[in-house]
Amino acid sequence: MEYEKVPAPPEEYVRVDHRELRRFVADVFERLGVPRGDAEIVADVLVTADLRGIESHGVARLRRYVDGLKAGTVNPRPEIKAVRESRCTALLDGDRGLGQVVGCRAMELAIRKAESDMVGVVGVRNSNHYGIAGYYALMAVERKLIGLSLTNSRPLACHTGALGRTIGTNPIALGAPAKTPPPFLLDMATTIVPIGKFETYRRKGLEAPADWAIDSRGEVTRDPEVVLKEGALLPLGGLLEVTGGHKGYGLSVAVDILCGLLTGAAWGSQVGGTAGPKPSNVGHFFAALNVEAFMPLSEFLERVDELKRYLKSARKHPNFKEIWVHGERSWLTMQTRLRKGVPVHKKTVEYFKEVSGELGVKLPRGI
Amino acid sequence: MEYEKVPAPPEEYVRVDHRELRRFVADVFERLGVPRGDAEIVADVLVTADLRGIESHGVARLRRYVDGLKAGTVNPRPEIKAVRESRCTALLDGDRGLGQVVGCRAMELAIRKAESDMVGVVGVRNSNHYGIAGYYALMAVERKLIGLSLTNSRPLACHTGALGRTIGTNPIALGAPAKTPPPFLLDMATTIVPIGKFETYRRKGLEAPADWAIDSRGEVTRDPEVVLKEGALLPLGGLLEVTGGHKGYGLSVAVDILCGLLTGAAWGSQVGGTAGPKPSNVGHFFAALNVEAFMPLSEFLERVDELKRYLKSARKHPNFKEIWVHGERSWLTMQTRLRKGVPVHKKTVEYFKEVSGELGVKLPRGI
Repeated sequence: MEYEKVPAPPEEYVRVDHRELRRFVADVFERLGVPRGDAEIVADVLVTADLRGIESHGVARLRRYVDGLKAGTVNPRPEIKAVRESRCTALLDGDRGLGQVVGCRAMELAIRKAESDMVGVVGVRNSNHYGIAGYYALMAVERKLIGLSLTNSRPLACHTGALGRTIGTNPIALGAPAKTPPPFLLDMATTIVPIGKFETYRRKGLEAPADWAIDSRGEVTRDPEVVLKEGALLPLGGLLEVTGGHKGYGLSVAVDILCGLLTGAAWGSQVGGTAGPKPSNVGHFFAALNVEAFMPLSEFLERVDELKRYLKSARKHPNFKEIWVHGERSWLTMQTRLRKGVPVHKKTVEYFKEVSGELGVKLPRGI
Repeated sequence: MEYEKVPAPPEEYVRVDHRELRRFVADVFERLGVPRGDAEIVADVLVTADLRGIESHGVARLRRYVDGLKAGTVNPRPEIKAVRESRCTALLDGDRGLGQVVGCRAMELAIRKAESDMVGVVGVRNSNHYGIAGYYALMAVERKLIGLSLTNSRPLACHTGALGRTIGTNPIALGAPAKTPPPFLLDMATTIVPIGKFETYRRKGLEAPADWAIDSRGEVTRDPEVVLKEGALLPLGGLLEVTGGHKGYGLSVAVDILCGLLTGAAWGSQVGGTAGPKPSNVGHFFAALNVEAFMPLSEFLERVDELKRYLKSARKHPNFKEIWVHGERSWLTMQTRLRKGVPVHKKTVEYFKEVSGELGVKLPRGI
């Protein structure tokens, strides 16, 4: 079965083999002083986003990380250190490293703790944008653990009752292993949509299809230009309390309490961008939970399969073609793209050519 | 300052001193075979909901618990046992006890583990409806810990793309201590509203003010009669993916994975009611996190105060009178009601009289 969560029309996208794409991205980071192993981690996180259909967090963001390394905001060779550590918890200082490198190190530590002592909780400060939150939850899932991955982000959203960009899109990812793939994976911004949606609509010259943001005076706007220039994303639930907007706001703040306040990282409007004038000081929060602390793993895996069947086989709403379980669409997209190649947008291809010439890195085959 | 989150007009409500209300509710439970200490726990959870302005989860629900005890669905003298336990985790079997009794026992265990080993994670099966999720998060907050409280619920909501009541309202509560009261407390159903809102609108003979539910054919309806009879609540984000409905759906399922699947409790449509024909087998999930695993407590408390000031002092949206931080309104309401008394609806007063006569329990003074 051919399936892609988001269509990639051939007049706009070039298909590139995922291994070639990984090699190219890793080469770019290595040329900028990142050790080969770390460069491959970043490449894997970015290409996995594209494989899973989350283009907004994939190789299209390469420029941002390259600029961050060039500007010195991001440290290519961080000394990631445990500032505090107990049997089941740790706080890591990411030393301004790439968020993907710091994030993987932190989740690996949480996984080790969960494997030896049933639960691992690891907070992180002094990091950078770490890509898709779901990647780290899936690291735990691959070890048959339940994984939680949270991060704060630069302020792009507005809290209920306020104006301007005051809080982050602060995503929540939770993954659980299943007996039969795909695993359950919730990976969501706590805003209605992430900012990348507006970048996509701007590129296509279209208005947004729903009320996702407000302008600087607080009026709802669907114009990508306005939103990207001076607007603020609305929390999940929307502008008003009557539609539950205060719940999305509360989830965003809860994520910031764990990622920003508790770790000593920046929070709220202090969180910086990857290539900004000062360290972004992004904070993350990871947890891994050993199923065996609660029931035999085989029984749990069977129960997750039952849950998936239960949700899929419900009576269908007449306006919907399909009922989806979280993680299913992105997994199907990945199966397709592993075979057919990863669609890379022509604007990203242009940037690839630019950076390839500048750094002397061989372009991926097919470009 | 006099403040109440939800107004309680004197023609509809009688004010009762919170101590008298607690005494009365505890007497009722004791008369039904619940040990005095446990009866006082249930009374405290219910009256706290009313004090905080969450009438839908307060003493208005007394009948449900009384019926559950009378029907034998709820066990008045449960033997709550640890089925599995490790240093930082445990799984408790609630032996069909009152959810408040089981929930408090579980959160106390999570707190002890967080105090001695930085983190405590406790799952629960074979429990019942436990009242407001926030109560248990606040137990941790009182000990200066971060508290997480989740529960599944009987199916009242519909997942994205489906019809009928397929998933629970599965709430999420997260609390964090502050230097200056009130603490941060997010306490939210993963649906736009809990079912109790429709009970309130029906009582008032009003339509709901927004699209919170669908009827049995999947059409959006604001009619409380239809919703309470055969409708389904919409997940936070609403009916469609374009407004983020799949995110509320995903949060609800994530809560059920932790509370229902992982603990061996019922999940999805299997979760029963408090006074149903079979044990409800509700599942809960609690976590307590020691701030000192990450930073000095005093520094964290100061940071939470800063966060509250930051959110409160943002530029105000022209359509809003006030910017609120989570936990603030319910705390202010509690201050008012501790002084002025708890408003008890006249319909609830009628039930009080009925149960008072039946069980020979003295009514609260003022009724």
